[in-house]
Amino acid sequence: MTIKSLIRTIPDYPKPGIMFRDITTLLKDPLGLRMSIDALAERCLRAQTPFDCIVGIEARGFILGGALAYALGKGFVPVRKKGKLPGAVVTQEYQLEYGTDKIEIHKDAIAPGTRVLLVDDLLATGGTALAAASLIEKLGGIVAEMGFIVDLPDLGGSKNLTSRGYRFFTLVEFEGE
Amino acid sequence: MTIKSLIRTIPDYPKPGIMFRDITTLLKDPLGLRMSIDALAERCLRAQTPFDCIVGIEARGFILGGALAYALGKGFVPVRKKGKLPGAVVTQEYQLEYGTDKIEIHKDAIAPGTRVLLVDDLLATGGTALAAASLIEKLGGIVAEMGFIVDLPDLGGSKNLTSRGYRFFTLVEFEGE
Repeated sequence: MTIKSLIRTIPDYPKPGIMFRDITTLLKDPLGLRMSIDALAERCLRAQTPFDCIVGIEARGFILGGALAYALGKGFVPVRKKGKLPGAVVTQEYQLEYGTDKIEIHKDAIAPGTRVLLVDDLLATGGTALAAASLIEKLGGIVAEMGFIVDLPDLGGSKNLTSRGYRFFTLVEFEGE
Repeated sequence: MTIKSLIRTIPDYPKPGIMFRDITTLLKDPLGLRMSIDALAERCLRAQTPFDCIVGIEARGFILGGALAYALGKGFVPVRKKGKLPGAVVTQEYQLEYGTDKIEIHKDAIAPGTRVLLVDDLLATGGTALAAASLIEKLGGIVAEMGFIVDLPDLGGSKNLTSRGYRFFTLVEFEGE
């Protein structure tokens, strides 16, 4: 059993032609969840880029980020959709395929100089991760590393992150298959 | 330092007169996150009601549920807002103060007879937890126990859960203070 074999592909979701990589089948498997978090933790330790806290992106990044923060003994900070956080926030707009969206972080969530590991389930174009990185940097934080379970290399996310100088790792790849 | 002392209260959010109990300050503290998950895990073990998987309610229940599932070696299943899950779902409507909302679970997420621990951050009226319990039961699952960090006893959630025969535990209480 591998992490990749536990990820389900749902064709034509959310629209025709898209092969949706669904990690819920990975997470509901006790060994799958454990393997995934342990693999992320091991990559963090192996990367030897120290960090102080984990930021997870709503909503699937919360499941992974919470578990990883627990596993590594770090704190967890959520990046949420606009209007969901109760305290004072900073906001970042980012491009979607059609239109734009906004994400937010609490202003006091990251102290200046804090080194952050940013976590999400999947790297597609990298748009959301770059927006979340901007939020962290607006607060004076440093994005030490980003971690994802799934990479969709056809969508160019790796290139977008690398060209902007971000370090990241992924656990499994799905090419146009 | 206690779990309760790390929870921040934001007055008049989301509207005048509401004292919002914000757990993000608890979660961003490494020791706070660890204490919270360990306390939930210990309550699960002490309750001696065995369960097979953990269901977390979007979105804050994902952070806690993911970490708790990892800590206890269980699988994690998300209950999400309507339209967010990619596979076939069952849906449950529930009452809000004004109007209604809908939550969903993947049809194949819970096998009949599976014993479930339901996790969320906060017990207010219990409406969302009862709706999530209905989803689990529609799939033939059994709600073995529910776990929350915060109880707001003034809002009647404990009574609503108990009167329907659900077992649950909470870690800290905030009365009208």
